[in-house]
Amino acid sequence: MEGDKAMVIFQPSGRRGSVPKGISLIEASRLLGVDIETLCGEKRVCGKCQVRIEEGHFEKYGIRSSMSHVSPWQKEEEKFINPEGKERGLRLACVAKVEGDLLIFVPEESRAGKQVVSKAARDIHIDRNPAVKLHYVELEKPTFEHPTGDFERLCEVLETQYGLRNLGIDLFALRQLPRALRDGEWKVTVSVWQDEEIIRVRPGKTDSCYGLAIDVGTTTVAGYFCDLQSMKVVDTVSLMNPQCKYGEDVMARITFHMSAPDGLQRMSDDIIAGINWLVEEAIRGTHPPRTKAKKRIGEELIEEWVEEPEEGKTYLRLTREDIEDIALGGNTAMHHILLQLDPQYVGLAPFPPVIHHSLDIKARDLGIRINPSSYVFVLPNEAGFVGADNVGVLIAEEPYKSEEMQLIIDIGTNGELVLGNKHKLLSSSCATGPAFEGAQIAFGMRAAPGAIERIKIDPETHEVDYKVIGREAWKSYSKLQEMQTKGICGSGILDVLAELYRSGVILKSGRFNPTQKSNRYRRNSENNQPEFVIAWANETSIGKDVVITQKDIRQIQLAKGALYAGCKLMMHRMGIEKIEKVKIAGAFGTHVDRQKALIMGLFPDCELDRVVSVGNAAGDGCRAALLNREKRKEADWVARNVEYIELTVEKAFQKEFMGAMQIPHMTDPFPHLEELVSPDILHQK
Amino acid sequence: MEGDKAMVIFQPSGRRGSVPKGISLIEASRLLGVDIETLCGEKRVCGKCQVRIEEGHFEKYGIRSSMSHVSPWQKEEEKFINPEGKERGLRLACVAKVEGDLLIFVPEESRAGKQVVSKAARDIHIDRNPAVKLHYVELEKPTFEHPTGDFERLCEVLETQYGLRNLGIDLFALRQLPRALRDGEWKVTVSVWQDEEIIRVRPGKTDSCYGLAIDVGTTTVAGYFCDLQSMKVVDTVSLMNPQCKYGEDVMARITFHMSAPDGLQRMSDDIIAGINWLVEEAIRGTHPPRTKAKKRIGEELIEEWVEEPEEGKTYLRLTREDIEDIALGGNTAMHHILLQLDPQYVGLAPFPPVIHHSLDIKARDLGIRINPSSYVFVLPNEAGFVGADNVGVLIAEEPYKSEEMQLIIDIGTNGELVLGNKHKLLSSSCATGPAFEGAQIAFGMRAAPGAIERIKIDPETHEVDYKVIGREAWKSYSKLQEMQTKGICGSGILDVLAELYRSGVILKSGRFNPTQKSNRYRRNSENNQPEFVIAWANETSIGKDVVITQKDIRQIQLAKGALYAGCKLMMHRMGIEKIEKVKIAGAFGTHVDRQKALIMGLFPDCELDRVVSVGNAAGDGCRAALLNREKRKEADWVARNVEYIELTVEKAFQKEFMGAMQIPHMTDPFPHLEELVSPDILHQK
Repeated sequence: MEGDKAMVIFQPSGRRGSVPKGISLIEASRLLGVDIETLCGEKRVCGKCQVRIEEGHFEKYGIRSSMSHVSPWQKEEEKFINPEGKERGLRLACVAKVEGDLLIFVPEESRAGKQVVSKAARDIHIDRNPAVKLHYVELEKPTFEHPTGDFERLCEVLETQYGLRNLGIDLFALRQLPRALRDGEWKVTVSVWQDEEIIRVRPGKTDSCYGLAIDVGTTTVAGYFCDLQSMKVVDTVSLMNPQCKYGEDVMARITFHMSAPDGLQRMSDDIIAGINWLVEEAIRGTHPPRTKAKKRIGEELIEEWVEEPEEGKTYLRLTREDIEDIALGGNTAMHHILLQLDPQYVGLAPFPPVIHHSLDIKARDLGIRINPSSYVFVLPNEAGFVGADNVGVLIAEEPYKSEEMQLIIDIGTNGELVLGNKHKLLSSSCATGPAFEGAQIAFGMRAAPGAIERIKIDPETHEVDYKVIGREAWKSYSKLQEMQTKGICGSGILDVLAELYRSGVILKSGRFNPTQKSNRYRRNSENNQPEFVIAWANETSIGKDVVITQKDIRQIQLAKGALYAGCKLMMHRMGIEKIEKVKIAGAFGTHVDRQKALIMGLFPDCELDRVVSVGNAAGDGCRAALLNREKRKEADWVARNVEYIELTVEKAFQKEFMGAMQIPHMTDPFPHLEELVSPDILHQK
Repeated sequence: MEGDKAMVIFQPSGRRGSVPKGISLIEASRLLGVDIETLCGEKRVCGKCQVRIEEGHFEKYGIRSSMSHVSPWQKEEEKFINPEGKERGLRLACVAKVEGDLLIFVPEESRAGKQVVSKAARDIHIDRNPAVKLHYVELEKPTFEHPTGDFERLCEVLETQYGLRNLGIDLFALRQLPRALRDGEWKVTVSVWQDEEIIRVRPGKTDSCYGLAIDVGTTTVAGYFCDLQSMKVVDTVSLMNPQCKYGEDVMARITFHMSAPDGLQRMSDDIIAGINWLVEEAIRGTHPPRTKAKKRIGEELIEEWVEEPEEGKTYLRLTREDIEDIALGGNTAMHHILLQLDPQYVGLAPFPPVIHHSLDIKARDLGIRINPSSYVFVLPNEAGFVGADNVGVLIAEEPYKSEEMQLIIDIGTNGELVLGNKHKLLSSSCATGPAFEGAQIAFGMRAAPGAIERIKIDPETHEVDYKVIGREAWKSYSKLQEMQTKGICGSGILDVLAELYRSGVILKSGRFNPTQKSNRYRRNSENNQPEFVIAWANETSIGKDVVITQKDIRQIQLAKGALYAGCKLMMHRMGIEKIEKVKIAGAFGTHVDRQKALIMGLFPDCELDRVVSVGNAAGDGCRAALLNREKRKEADWVARNVEYIELTVEKAFQKEFMGAMQIPHMTDPFPHLEELVSPDILHQK
């Protein structure tokens, strides 16, 4: 970029814009609405605001980013960034200044206002039957009369006491065996995987045994840290999928793999690093918080970490080795990339995955640092575009055990649909795009503090009232500067669309009503496109008007149209006219106003009280597989017994899709519509 | 033969019988119990089942065989049989049909379940049944109607064609799958381990599949590089165990582990590095030799490697990935150290090993660089001091299949003994020390050029004549400076002892005869100990007199005494007076003069022609396990069904041992003794 401006793009949020040269990266982040942690208020003492400068020519964004595009390295950065970090391109955002175009990656730990991931969601009933079980045994010592080896001695008792036959043992567990037996004076606790293989031997008696259920989303990776003995969720940990820097959606990642020779390896390494971070995070939570304290030893003042336990609180104080099982699911592309399976055919018709079956893979073979003998159970895939995440939803929701005809909608970066009951199950995928996640929307953002989640527009004045996440009071009950609005979150976008339409700002076709007189309606000064101001700059923390553009509205229309058309086609295939229950999974489902979703025609008509949100059902499915081995078999069964429909090859799809893009979808009766919208608007052309 | 039947005779097996006309030659072979290779499951695509029709009137069999007695030549046979082969009468057995009496020759390469004799060491019969087998398949491409994933698509065909059910696949093989299927245009060759797990997928058709059998000795590591398809030993490679630097014998290694915190890791790393070297060496042998040559590129003279193939020789040009299986055995301590299992309890009463069972371990988990999905099969251990090496000897020699009461002596760094037959098997270990391997002997050395292997001492003059390895002529027929003597090898030491005694240089007790007048007898100038010069400095390449010391003689006496006492005790336990056969395994067995061994009382009396050397039987056992998976089961069975006797706790051992140290052992009748030694020496006190 020429002159005194530079183009700056922040990943993984994708926020971009031109900023004046010479400002600090923190200042740039603020201008572009990116939250970077600055505990010390830019006093350069907390070291929280570390960001990474990505080197290279980024054709996708039309920029070249380089370390030489930031101001020189400063001595004070050395306190927080070691030479290796420096080598990797880390800088303090409060110190480094913009001197040219930049692609900046904000690591998870530097992100303020971290995403709100629904906590261990729901209480779903899971029978306790984990793959890893503990067995306590007491052995006889070897003698000259019976000098049998350690392993066989152990197996004899495990067979006599627990009926475990033909057990194998992992090499790493075998290495622990002689020491554990002698340290425990021939009394040990053995972890057995699937009644088949010994994966851990500890001296004495213990009932500590933990596992991690991981839902690998295209955007968010969520981990449920579970006690395999008590079945309790000890902690919920999450981070943004570090692959986001290669592209927001599945196809972008596949494209990155096909364009960069080591793309697959890099994306796999990133998600593995992310999972290892989740593991560390889960473990860290079992120890007291620590702070750095100065301590005098003789003459010297030494800095060291000091634990600061909360009073009355007990800590499990676990280590990585205490995590003995992982169950993991994701869509087919995430699944393939994580396992380093070539994902390109998943993106090419007829979209065959490399494998459907579930897999048991040694964590060490994936580079996941938990107990070295442990397995990672990877949920099976249904098809190229309906992956292990959907299988997770299925085993959590179990539509195949119900008479009720259910529609399950999982809205993530892609929309995945399941329709059926115990007699028949159909699944399909529709390219909703990530609009419902707030991506590809001008001021879209994740469901984080400052995101608009509810909105009302006065049909007369077109005045806007709204509510942001993290603040109870609506704008009309607040001082403007208290709002600190940042953008619009995915579920809020549907609210915006419904209100824009209800208030007559947009027409049924989705186009802005050209006759309106609102001062909020204007044309963008740069590209001359129409837009509508939701929040004025003085209500925001980013110093800019938050607007919704014509393009944004199109994105949402496309998304809802695809979803609706997909549902209709599946109903047609199933030969039904009516759905008995709609379940909306995913973070979107948790936040969305079900009534508005119904009115906006996200899915075919259904009684409102039969529309329920089921939270992160994919994650619940992973948890079910972690805690009950029978659910793993069920997963393999259902993955092969749900019939996948490829919507793109259905002739009726395009027609249905075109119709469904309109707002609201009028081919269906909308019993609640009259109550909500004034008749004149409803019948407006 | 008349009517609808024909007489078919298969050569070289000679199987014959009448079969219905119209069936294929393959079907006929099956009816008559002849195994013909059919990689493709008679899909007419592998070309493996070529047989030759013998033309002529075979009076011996009462038939006339003719090319006209088979169905006409088919176009599809041309792909595999060239015109010359056609002329010679070759046909595809899956294509050609019986139309009259036939004499059919099955060439070696078309025989399934081959019985091939190894070129390494000895001819032992091994039925072909490797753990890793190849299967060639042709798949349908995925379509919108059948978009099934790659793995499931492959499994379907493997099940239909080869009856392989519930196959798993290694992650690393799974990563190859999508590429291999598309590169091979949906025709691939799959390597399947134990009918359970796919470990390799290659595009197109291939029958290249190799394995390595490794005998991990305390001193020497030997590898047999085998073609798993033809059963042939492609190459034999070996190296000294790199752990020798930590100590010559098992106890020294265990001590090193206990004294150095990282001792186990270091010794394990060393042997793994050694095995990787063996792998490299085996692979290198399949490529032409290379030399460095200078090459001019523009101005520059560049050095590069240039291949220099021998004329007329074809090279397999294999890579590490082409080694798809390893079978490995060693004594219990070597086994434990390699696997990083704490070996200290193997050295402490009651000597329990960490594990008896055989193990299947992924090569990558051990750091062995072969095909990344491949397994290493580790033979089972009998006891702390009788390890997987002895199990190797057992499955090679199969005493448990014989009525004959056999004594098998495996003399390595330790002496391992097996006594028994099909009704009962005993094993034990005796601390012979490494004297028979030339270690702990002043001028002892390995069986290498320059080592004295045979000796004669004149009883009158005490003049010495001898022969060294690598030189045909004895010293008395050579110029002294031609001898280039370096030392005495392990098996030569027994010769030395026998001759020293026969010539009256030493007494029955092993002490030097103090009355002798030989100028070769002297006291060491440094330690004043008596010694006898075998070779004067001017006959050697080391510029020193090669002597045998009183201490050397004691070492040999201890070794032979331990061995003899062990044998006697086992006979006592077995309740027998006489052994029907003695088998001497190991390099010692190959080099030793059996008669002298018998005279010197290495083992209880037996007919001389019933004493045989069985070479590296431990290595043969590894090879058997590599080439026949049933031998692996046999190994586990025998390891738990041979009764181990701990000699050190037997009261009678010490007494037997003391007596057995004398030379020769006089409690046994020595029928051959009179012929060999002069009566006056025999009756000398």
